Amino acid sequence: MTKTVQSTENVCRAIPFTDVKIDSLFWNSVLETHHRVTVHTVVNRCIETNRVNNFIKSGKYLKMGIDKPLPKELEFEGRFYDDSDVYKAIEGAAYSLMQYKDEALEKKIDTIIDAIEEAQWFDGYLMTFYTIDPENKGQRWTDMDRHEMYCGGHLIEAAIAYYSATGKDKLLKVSKKMVDHWMKIFGPDKRDWVPGHQEVELALVKLYELTQDRRYLDFALWLLSERGKDHYVSEGRPYLDKDQLFYKREYHQDHLPVEEQSFVSGHAVRAMYMYTGMADVAKYFNKKEYMNALTKIWENIVYSNMYITGGIGSSIENEGFTEDFDLPNVSAYAETCAAIGMVFFNHRMNLLYEDGKYAHIIEREIYNGVLSGVSLSGDRFFYVNPLESDGKPFEEGGHKRRQEWFKTSCCPTNLSRFLPCVSEYIYAQKNEKIYINQYISSTGSININGVNLNIIQQNNFPWDGEVEVKLKADKKVNATICFRIPDWCEEYSYQYSGNINSPIGLKKEYVCMDIEINGEETLKIIFVMKVKKVHMDPRVKEDQGKIALQRGPVVYAFEEVDNPHGIDDILIGRDTQFYSEWSPDLLRGIVRLKVKNDEKEWNAIPYYAWDNRELGKMSVFVKELIDNTRSVEN
Amino acid sequence: MTKTVQSTENVCRAIPFTDVKIDSLFWNSVLETHHRVTVHTVVNRCIETNRVNNFIKSGKYLKMGIDKPLPKELEFEGRFYDDSDVYKAIEGAAYSLMQYKDEALEKKIDTIIDAIEEAQWFDGYLMTFYTIDPENKGQRWTDMDRHEMYCGGHLIEAAIAYYSATGKDKLLKVSKKMVDHWMKIFGPDKRDWVPGHQEVELALVKLYELTQDRRYLDFALWLLSERGKDHYVSEGRPYLDKDQLFYKREYHQDHLPVEEQSFVSGHAVRAMYMYTGMADVAKYFNKKEYMNALTKIWENIVYSNMYITGGIGSSIENEGFTEDFDLPNVSAYAETCAAIGMVFFNHRMNLLYEDGKYAHIIEREIYNGVLSGVSLSGDRFFYVNPLESDGKPFEEGGHKRRQEWFKTSCCPTNLSRFLPCVSEYIYAQKNEKIYINQYISSTGSININGVNLNIIQQNNFPWDGEVEVKLKADKKVNATICFRIPDWCEEYSYQYSGNINSPIGLKKEYVCMDIEINGEETLKIIFVMKVKKVHMDPRVKEDQGKIALQRGPVVYAFEEVDNPHGIDDILIGRDTQFYSEWSPDLLRGIVRLKVKNDEKEWNAIPYYAWDNRELGKMSVFVKELIDNTRSVEN
Repeated sequence: MTKTVQSTENVCRAIPFTDVKIDSLFWNSVLETHHRVTVHTVVNRCIETNRVNNFIKSGKYLKMGIDKPLPKELEFEGRFYDDSDVYKAIEGAAYSLMQYKDEALEKKIDTIIDAIEEAQWFDGYLMTFYTIDPENKGQRWTDMDRHEMYCGGHLIEAAIAYYSATGKDKLLKVSKKMVDHWMKIFGPDKRDWVPGHQEVELALVKLYELTQDRRYLDFALWLLSERGKDHYVSEGRPYLDKDQLFYKREYHQDHLPVEEQSFVSGHAVRAMYMYTGMADVAKYFNKKEYMNALTKIWENIVYSNMYITGGIGSSIENEGFTEDFDLPNVSAYAETCAAIGMVFFNHRMNLLYEDGKYAHIIEREIYNGVLSGVSLSGDRFFYVNPLESDGKPFEEGGHKRRQEWFKTSCCPTNLSRFLPCVSEYIYAQKNEKIYINQYISSTGSININGVNLNIIQQNNFPWDGEVEVKLKADKKVNATICFRIPDWCEEYSYQYSGNINSPIGLKKEYVCMDIEINGEETLKIIFVMKVKKVHMDPRVKEDQGKIALQRGPVVYAFEEVDNPHGIDDILIGRDTQFYSEWSPDLLRGIVRLKVKNDEKEWNAIPYYAWDNRELGKMSVFVKELIDNTRSVEN
Repeated sequence: MTKTVQSTENVCRAIPFTDVKIDSLFWNSVLETHHRVTVHTVVNRCIETNRVNNFIKSGKYLKMGIDKPLPKELEFEGRFYDDSDVYKAIEGAAYSLMQYKDEALEKKIDTIIDAIEEAQWFDGYLMTFYTIDPENKGQRWTDMDRHEMYCGGHLIEAAIAYYSATGKDKLLKVSKKMVDHWMKIFGPDKRDWVPGHQEVELALVKLYELTQDRRYLDFALWLLSERGKDHYVSEGRPYLDKDQLFYKREYHQDHLPVEEQSFVSGHAVRAMYMYTGMADVAKYFNKKEYMNALTKIWENIVYSNMYITGGIGSSIENEGFTEDFDLPNVSAYAETCAAIGMVFFNHRMNLLYEDGKYAHIIEREIYNGVLSGVSLSGDRFFYVNPLESDGKPFEEGGHKRRQEWFKTSCCPTNLSRFLPCVSEYIYAQKNEKIYINQYISSTGSININGVNLNIIQQNNFPWDGEVEVKLKADKKVNATICFRIPDWCEEYSYQYSGNINSPIGLKKEYVCMDIEINGEETLKIIFVMKVKKVHMDPRVKEDQGKIALQRGPVVYAFEEVDNPHGIDDILIGRDTQFYSEWSPDLLRGIVRLKVKNDEKEWNAIPYYAWDNRELGKMSVFVKELIDNTRSVEN
């Protein structure tokens, strides 16, 4: 590895969520519920379901001596990758602790961390499954698809988060010891390895960013560079036949060297985490071939493999991608974790390319495909996010309502660590250039050439498109302000109180201008927010002749409970009228849509808020009325 | 008719072409060729083909006395609607004379006008076919589909143009006498009439605008309101059966009351002229029901029935519309006149709604589907504008190359009257608000509250996207400037030298801002012009898996003559590279596109310029390379 690490002085970076304080009608209630309910829920579930216990048992067994027989009472319970949920629960709790003081929670996490520390092997290895599973103990590093580095990656992220939140470095030391162990075994001129579930790559980059120890970065690059080289074939599952192998390799995005991949394939969450890691590595090594691959992959996802909600990975078979335009509604898989992965991926791309088209996707995800993953109460979760439901109970073949927990519970723990960081997506900075990516009422603290600048955003997104941005600086300062024009917005206007010292215009979805900030200035923006009728690409067979409604970034759904005459015969035509109605008492406060034809009226609610009331039918897409007064000639 | 005519003081109107002087590299050569060649060509063809002679013969016969037997030498030659070509040739010549002094041409037109005057009946009736066709003489007003009012409409337009150009009112008097004759026979409480080929409606509105005699406006409204009422059935062709009748009525847009029509149908030119007339009438009578119908029709045309070139009316069968998305390339009809009609229609809509989306269409038409109608030499014409040709001679089933003339020669005469007025589409004004609709180097004279403002535009459209607009006012004046952001442009920037006194932003495709003009100010705009790969709506079967190239407003085509290895195996993929090359000596000066894959290179030229060299294959759409390294799962 002789590649030079690029200086990141002149790169665009996000203003961290710790420097951005949200104060938004919409997000306050999401975040408050998250802190009050979700964070505790997932930590407690990890305890109740013996996930934490696996660490305690492992510690005990290690203390006994791993050459001793495994006592029945120390046997592993659950699924092999369950450690990751504990790490993600810690990570979420850490982010929460950065924003809300909560001694009881911190104490609880400390105890869990003690157990994790004790579950680590003397040589740094750490995974409870291979420590105390009766059939697998000691069989470490024999199966690339058993998530050892996936769990390790989540440990790293948790450790960094908890260290940043509390200054406590116990978990961080555990992480470093684990990675040292990895790097002793694997690497150039050592053993090959292709993690069957990516995640570790992006985590290693985070560890590099914290420690500035470039061995982590090099290792992340090496892991990526090993993909598509048949290692999985030789090492992983020798019992697979050739077809199974190709399928399996594509499932893991291991079918081609990563820089040669130009279409999405396989398991959606694995894919998103890998692309995120690739973007991270590309930034530090200026790897154009990674960036080119990611650009193509992004187009393939967004133009041919994404639901209107931002959901991706339509099939339950591989929890992932199938053919382009295969986007069924009832059977949509659209895993919550995949939507979160899309945010991670698009966030990196947004910063790499300074292109607002990636922030469009983040907006689509956070108001739709991600947020639908959690109930308004904060303690129930969707793993799968269908766009249509027949309203039958699950037992009769209907959709699974939001659950308290899952055997594979990646989605609840992912939401728990995702939501408290949502303010990280609002602002970005590159030297004097400030990007406003999301319109969420908040105060961001930014340093421009030594001058402290507060950027105070006030609006009522996602319900209203008027935005006021106050810029308050210690002293007079010049900056370039770039604000994103959302993809749903066709009309907008803006006014800046101070001097504008450059041409203005639209570039990569941003209006950019060089401004003077003299003490306090104001930028007012109005994004005209209208109900839009959205057609999917007509190659999406299931949505042919159908339409969905979107207002601002929010995608709407029709639920039976709001529509006493049912939702089967909804028809939206050229003459259909739409009314938006602020309904503060409904579903934590929403803008409800009223949809009127001559005689009939229906109600639609934001998609993210569906399934929070009684069971019933739901549909995002409804039939479009095609006027048949036109006869066809010839 | 008790409707009130709306005041037009506060409506948006075009700055007339007489107040806009074009000085553009691109358009100078188009217009100079037009004046030097086309105008004379069509006038002379009208003479050579005995179209003018029909008037002379009619005059002689009328002098003999129409009760006398028709001498063989005075018999009508040609097709029943041929008078219209003479009128359109006069109209084109008139516009040319407004801009270039040409005494010989004016004298020639005067002689033709004398002949027209003598061909008018004592009671005002005027159509040579019903005057001297041996089988049809005297059979006036017996068949709604024999274009009597269509020809009359073109006479009105010619008369107004010639009066405006020369101050001579002979033809105008003929027109008025003709219309008085019509209004004596037809109208409420008189005879029903549904012109089988619309055009007269928009002409009557022009006559109203010149004379302020609102009888003309009322008559236009009445003619439109008569459609869709079965008059055609009862009056026109009693020998048609029911199915034939419905087909026939839709062909003429007479199948429904015009305000109930919401999809395009039938003959494309008839449709466009009718919609244009409806928009005109809607303006003066504030007819919301017409405007609603037109809005829907427009969407149906633009989203489902228009070629990338702006061509409309895909079928030779009815010279018009078939089913949505039926847009074949080789057999595309896409009549030049229909494209011109689209400009007329969109021009009215642009002014009515002050919405740039209509000006987008005008831009698409003038650089593609209209301009392809005339050869670079100015004396050969396309009636039909295919998007693909197999390169075979017409005799062997290939496409018809541009012709010197046609038996039905509406297209050459339409081009002759269209092109000299192209500067009318550049600027529009509503009180203090100035719209820049087209980016064509020119000087426009505008009056704002008594202050004379010169708007001087300099650019190299359609080859380059940099625009400079100088605003020169006699004295300090405030204005609102609105410039269109072309639909092909994704990135732009602009800078204004003076003060901006309002928020700025995008509304209905325009950037609008209140500005101060202090003597002389400058607005600089950069529209980033890139080669774009354009997919048609995937429901267009013929273009599935294909792509077309567009750069700025110009659609490109591959011609065999530029591609020694043929154009059959062109493949455009994600890795294809594009180079733009200014080629001053090629095809009157064009930007040529070089299209490169790893091993192969092809050349593309602007579509409008095809078929100006040797016969060969041509295609706008070429295959898209789909990377098949991605396997399909499951």
